Parts: sequence; C-alpha cells; structure tokens
Amino acid sequence: MARHGQSKLNAFLHPTGHHVAAWRHPRAQADAGVNFDHYVELARTAERAKFDAIFLADSAAVRDQNIESASRVARYVVHFEPITLLSGIAAATRHIGLIATATTTYNEPFHIARKFASLDHISKGRAGWNLATSAGEVEAFNFSRTAHPAHADRYDRAREFAQVVTGLWDSWEDDAFLRDKESGLYFEPSKQHVLNHSGPHFAVRGPLNVARAPQGRPVLVQAGSSEAGKELAAETAEVIFTAAQTLEEAQAFYTDVKGRLSRYGRHADTLKILPGVSPIVGRTRDEAEAKFAELQELIHPAVGLSLLSQMLGGVDLSGHPLDGPLPELPETNAAKSRQKLLVDLARREGFSIRQLYQWIAGARGHWAIRGTAKDIADQLEAWFEGHAADGFNVMPPTLPGGLDDFVDLVVPELRRRKLFREEYEGRTLRENLGLPYPHHPAAKPSAPPGCEVGGQARPIAANG
Amino acid sequence: MARHGQSKLNAFLHPTGHHVAAWRHPRAQADAGVNFDHYVELARTAERAKFDAIFLADSAAVRDQNIESASRVARYVVHFEPITLLSGIAAATRHIGLIATATTTYNEPFHIARKFASLDHISKGRAGWNLATSAGEVEAFNFSRTAHPAHADRYDRAREFAQVVTGLWDSWEDDAFLRDKESGLYFEPSKQHVLNHSGPHFAVRGPLNVARAPQGRPVLVQAGSSEAGKELAAETAEVIFTAAQTLEEAQAFYTDVKGRLSRYGRHADTLKILPGVSPIVGRTRDEAEAKFAELQELIHPAVGLSLLSQMLGGVDLSGHPLDGPLPELPETNAAKSRQKLLVDLARREGFSIRQLYQWIAGARGHWAIRGTAKDIADQLEAWFEGHAADGFNVMPPTLPGGLDDFVDLVVPELRRRKLFREEYEGRTLRENLGLPYPHHPAAKPSAPPGCEVGGQARPIAANG
Repeated sequence: MARHGQSKLNAFLHPTGHHVAAWRHPRAQADAGVNFDHYVELARTAERAKFDAIFLADSAAVRDQNIESASRVARYVVHFEPITLLSGIAAATRHIGLIATATTTYNEPFHIARKFASLDHISKGRAGWNLATSAGEVEAFNFSRTAHPAHADRYDRAREFAQVVTGLWDSWEDDAFLRDKESGLYFEPSKQHVLNHSGPHFAVRGPLNVARAPQGRPVLVQAGSSEAGKELAAETAEVIFTAAQTLEEAQAFYTDVKGRLSRYGRHADTLKILPGVSPIVGRTRDEAEAKFAELQELIHPAVGLSLLSQMLGGVDLSGHPLDGPLPELPETNAAKSRQKLLVDLARREGFSIRQLYQWIAGARGHWAIRGTAKDIADQLEAWFEGHAADGFNVMPPTLPGGLDDFVDLVVPELRRRKLFREEYEGRTLRENLGLPYPHHPAAKPSAPPGCEVGGQARPIAANG
Repeated sequence: MARHGQSKLNAFLHPTGHHVAAWRHPRAQADAGVNFDHYVELARTAERAKFDAIFLADSAAVRDQNIESASRVARYVVHFEPITLLSGIAAATRHIGLIATATTTYNEPFHIARKFASLDHISKGRAGWNLATSAGEVEAFNFSRTAHPAHADRYDRAREFAQVVTGLWDSWEDDAFLRDKESGLYFEPSKQHVLNHSGPHFAVRGPLNVARAPQGRPVLVQAGSSEAGKELAAETAEVIFTAAQTLEEAQAFYTDVKGRLSRYGRHADTLKILPGVSPIVGRTRDEAEAKFAELQELIHPAVGLSLLSQMLGGVDLSGHPLDGPLPELPETNAAKSRQKLLVDLARREGFSIRQLYQWIAGARGHWAIRGTAKDIADQLEAWFEGHAADGFNVMPPTLPGGLDDFVDLVVPELRRRKLFREEYEGRTLRENLGLPYPHHPAAKPSAPPGCEVGGQARPIAANG
C-alpha cells in the first residue's frame, strides 16, 4: 500500500514505567509519581527525539483499595494531577505536545474547558485533552456518590460534556480581543458568543473566561474502544489511543473507526489512530529477552493478581488458585472492552490466572514487543504501512531507561526508513499531528476547508 | 510597641494591574490575562525582591454580563485558571510562594486537595490555597445551578470543604513511602489514613492520591471579612488578605481576628494578617500625583459604574444620575462586608455615584496611597508597628510598572528600616512566612509544639 505520510509518536508516561514491577528496577526513579524533575527529564527526552506529544493517564483515586497489594504497587497510588503537572512541564519545554486525561464523570465541563484552554495558552498551542469516563467505583466514593454510573450513562454524559467543552472553547472568535487602548474598547461585542447550553446533564451559560486557544481548540483525544467509545470517538476525537495485539486486530479497528467518520461529515485524515506499543529494546535479541526476564522476576504475586482484578473491572479473584483457569466472570460496568479482550485471550491461549497476570504485567493488554531496534522498527513499519496505525502510543516498560532506549535506538532506525520526522513541522501539537485548524463557526474561513487539512494554512491566533 | 519580627510581602497580581483602567495605560501589557511570559516576568520581579508570595484572585465566569461595559473592561474577562498558571510559574521560579484562589462553592474537595498538593510537590513547598466562596450568581450559571447559594450556606459548605481538604492532605504520613525495591514494599500500610468523611455536604472516602505535601499542608489563606468569614479564618486560615481604609480600622480587625484564635487552641503567631495596599510611588510627590491623575483620566463611565455595581453585590445603578447620591440598596447575598464598607464610605464622605466609582477605581476599596518611597514606607511602618498588619498584600495599580516601582523604590527603603528581609529565611512558603509545620496527627512531634513556630525546626518531608 502507498505510504500515508509519516508515523506519529506519542510517549505515554506511567510514572515509573508501564511494567507493573518497573518501580523495583534498579535504575527506576521510585518516587517518580511526585518527582517533577523526573517528568521534566522525560519530556525533554521525548522532545529531543521530536515526539509529537507526551501523555498522562489518570485516576481520581488510589485505584487499589486492598491494602495488602496496594502497598506493593507504585501505579496509581500517589502521583501528580495531570493538568497541573503538564503546565509545569510546558514552562520547561518548547515543542512537545502535552496531553492530559480528565474524566467527564466526576468533573464539570466549565472547569475542564477552562483548564485546557489555559494550558493551551501557557504552552502556546500544545495542549490535548484525553476525554475519559473513569474505570471504577473507587472514584465515585471520592465525589459524594454511592455508585459509579452505568457504562451507557457515562457515555451519554461524556457526549454532552464534550459538546459543552467545545462550545465553551468557541466563546470568543479568534480576533475578538481588540484591546484598543485609545478608544477603550477591550473586545468586539459581536465576537463574544454566549453558549447558553441546556441539556439533560448540564446547564452552562458561558462564555468561557479564557480567550480562544492558540490551537483554536485543544486537541481532543480518546481511548475507549467499546461500541459507545468508538462512536463517540468517530464523532468528536482527533486522536485515539487504542490497544491491539495483532496486526489484523489493529487493521480491523482502524478500518472500523475510520469508516464511521463520514457519518459525521469528517475526512479520514482528521482522526489519528495510535495503538499502544510497549517495546523492550536490546542491542541484541538476547539483551532484550534478558531485560524482560529481569522485570518479570520482580512481579510480586499480590501485585499481579491485583492488576488482573482491576483490569477485569474489579472482579475478586482471591478465592481461585493462581495456577488454575480464569473462572466465569460477572458482566462488568467498568471497562467492558478491556475485560472482553482479556477473557478472549485467556480462553484462546489456555492461560492460568498466573500466566494471564504475567502476560499483562508488561503493558496491561497492550502490544508488547521485544528485540533489536531493527526488529521493533520492522513491526512498527508493518503496522504503519498496513493501515493499522497512523502512529504509535509508545509505552516504555521502565522509565527513564525504556524511553532512552527507544529514543536512542529505535527512533534513528525509523528515521533511516523515512518513517519519522527529522524536525517538527509546525509550532502547535495540532500542526505536528497534521490536524486541521478548527475555524470558529461564526468566522469565514479564508480558504476552502479541504485546503487546511495539514494545519499549515493558518497562523497561530493573534490572541495567543 | 515592640517590633514583631519583619513585615511579610505578598504581590497580588491582577493581570494588567489593580486600577480599573490599567489596561489602557501606555505601558500596560493589554493581553496580560493570557500572556504567560508576562506573569513569569512579574513572578521573577517579586522573587528578586524576596517577596513571600504572589497571589491570584479568581472568578469562574466572565464577571460582567453587561456587554456594553464588559467590552471595555479587562478585569475578569479572560485570564488563566490560577492553579494551571501557578504550576507553570513554579517551573520558572525557585523561591517565591504561589497562592491561588479556588472557590469551595463550585468545586469538589478531592480535586482541590489534589491540585494544591500537586502544586506543592511541583514547586517543592511553595503552594498556598486562598479559600473563597464566590461572589455572585454569574458563576452558578456555569455549573448547572439556578441560583448562587445564600451566604450562610456557602460558609457552612466552605467549613466542611476545608475539613475534607485538610483531612485528605493527611492521607499519608510524611514517611509513609518506603519505596523499598529489595522487599517490594512501596508504602507502609499503617501510615496510610483513609479519610472516610461523611457530612451534610460531602461524602469523601479518600485516601488522596498524592503523597503528603513538602509543606505538610499547603498554606491556607482567606480573604472574607464578614462575621462568618472571620470566624472561619480564625478556625482554619494561616494568612488573611483583608481590606481596611484607616490604621484604626485595620487595628480593630487585627485585634478582633487574633483574639478569636485562642478559641481554637491557636497561637496568635500562627495567622498572618496582610491588609491590601495599592501604592502609587513617585520619585517626588508630584510625580506620584501625576501618575494617579493619568490613570483616573482613563476610566470610561460605563466601566466605573459596572465596577461599582459588582462591588455592591450586583446592584443595578443604571437608572440613577451619576452625579447624584447612592440610593438605598437591597440587602445582598453576594459580598456583604464589601457592600457595607462602600455604603458607609459614601455616606461619610457625601460621595456621588461618580465620586464613589472614581474612589474605588484604583484599588476597589483597598487602601490606596500615593507619594515617595519614604511616604509609602512611613505608612507601612506605622501599620506594621501599630499591630494593624503582619505584612502587606501589595496591589500594584499598573503592571508591570507598578510592581517595578514598588520593588525598586519602596523595598530598599523598607530594608533600610530593617522592616523587610534581605534573603529568604527558609525553603518553603510556610518557612518564609514563619508558620509552624503541621505535623501529621498520627505522628509524634520531635519537639514540643511551641518550639516549631517559625517553621525552622523540621526539614522538608523526604517524600518531596
């Protein structure tokens, strides 16, 4: 198939790395979750390699409420709130995109619209919002709720939430602020747009108290892959982070989601699909295998079991023998698509509970690959050329080491193949991703819409 | 009276300056509200002068909904969300404290506890939270509410909100995180404290997903001066920003609030009272007067009237002649103490509506003084020595010029009088303010509580 541009690369930064035992690695920054200098170092490494963005997942709760396993896990115990962290990183970087997760289930759209618009101004056009609906009950209990809303209700709310946020981001036209000291006119009244939203979940008047963002709107990202998640992404998302195990699976997802876009009047290029990949890179294959084995040795059984239980949507597996099969599971309200992926895998491979948690320990169901830079690049190239991916959500198993390895070994190999940029193409995240500038609905575009795909047609808003 | 240490100084940064017409000043940064580099410059100026902190007020709405006046006002139209902004500034500074306003009326305590704890880690111990209850209905309409809650209800909620936030900040003891790679124990289970709060306004389980802050708890600030505001401050605040017009008024407030502390088992030194002061400094008195006159000339009548109307709690004054007296006003639910201050002033001075808005245009009812550095320092010294203030909340009428003037002219004069520090005494905001370290309730203090006033007794938490 024809080459469709170059691959995008995003660095998904789990504090100590994506492998569940990463924090125990001798070179791990064990206090990573609350170590700002650690994150600045990672962001600068990714920026040096010309990654499109860094990305932070989130949980508005200590996820594991079982003190026995929780006390052995570094993941989602204590870590920075992502938006706060990214605005600190914005001040310490110049080019890299900054994507934070924020849940629509336990937030107010006005706050979220405002924070991401602020981050976009602070970073001069590098903000992205990963819209999530939260994965479990533990968050509900921190927000005066007695239960986590049902999957369909969460997506219903998320859809309206995204409409409100997008509407608030359009509260002001790009050139609304005259700031004419002589006449005393600060803004042009006709270029303020009061939202006056009223829907089943929200009543929000507006206008937003932040000027239109340098990117017009921060980049909208999603990661859900249930039916509702895919449909919401087709309607609203500009980037999807997804999980697939095989080229065929990834191709099917890619074709499925891209095919839905036309329903919403969208061109296939306006949504970038980035499957997760957790690479263990060695200078030889043996070195890569040894790195993997070293990490697997560090998994405490209580931690493996807790991870598996969370990924299955909070199922309690403690009564079942570790070396026996996965029992029949009740239907989950939490993370539907992930549960199905794991159950199918266990059945197909005949995995015991222990084998299943060992299998997900590296990347939680994402695509985990090991080998030399050439091995890794071969596989990424096959996915990219095979229309399974517009780029990759790189999930280093350890940090900072796993990111350094990818940047020092794999990125040069991708460049040799012309698969990845030598320099940033644009000044904003949107421009680097090749996404169109979202003109204000009330403003006349200066060129036909088709000409702006690629995002180069329009300078950064003057009010940045 | 005896000298009680040295004065504290906080820089209250309204985007373009506190004078209502500041944005029209020839040297004003008219896009200040969304200009990150402008704020970094201000923060570095304040840090160079060894100010304790910078402070940002807030409004979760475009405050003025009258398009005619709003379009001529730069205040509270578009500006950064404060926490997001301060974490960006944290990365660009090293010593200065960072105090952001966040309302308890339209937020969730878990989010607020988490964001300020994050900011404290990012800044390595420089965060402060100004607890506010919001001043008007305009915010309600952005958060799916049909009305702004009554004053008493807001304070009732605020009090519980502060309890929850403080409790969440104590979710982990200072030394809870062992991060022992060898044994695999990440934290000591007995040093995690689940809050399990259940009250009339909130049910919050916890624990917070951020380690205990470098300051133990971020510094708690308040600015309300109603009866309910003073009582809440006496119970919970460590810094109060207040407004007073005369030495006597300031002394009365100081004595009143400090006298309430013993009810809550608190020492008078554990709360610092900082009245607002808006200084116009000249190299001569004539120069100061000329600077003031230049600003007063720039006030558009629609803007003056709108400011006055907002400060009176949203009263509509449009039917009344500008040169006539202030009419009888309905009781307000919004900003009780401020309305009373202004009504009393107008009656006492026989001000017309126009005279009243001109009078507040400079500093919105705060203490506005003009003169040479010596004149200004004389007055600050009298207030400080007269036990009317532990320091000052400096409100530059213009920015960056008004802050530069204060730093270059007044600060050296205060130093000559030994009224202000030559160097930062501590590493954290709390240490510089001379506030005690809040030991974790479950931890045994290493010295009797009295010995820690001054905050020097205890190193920064190891988990910072």
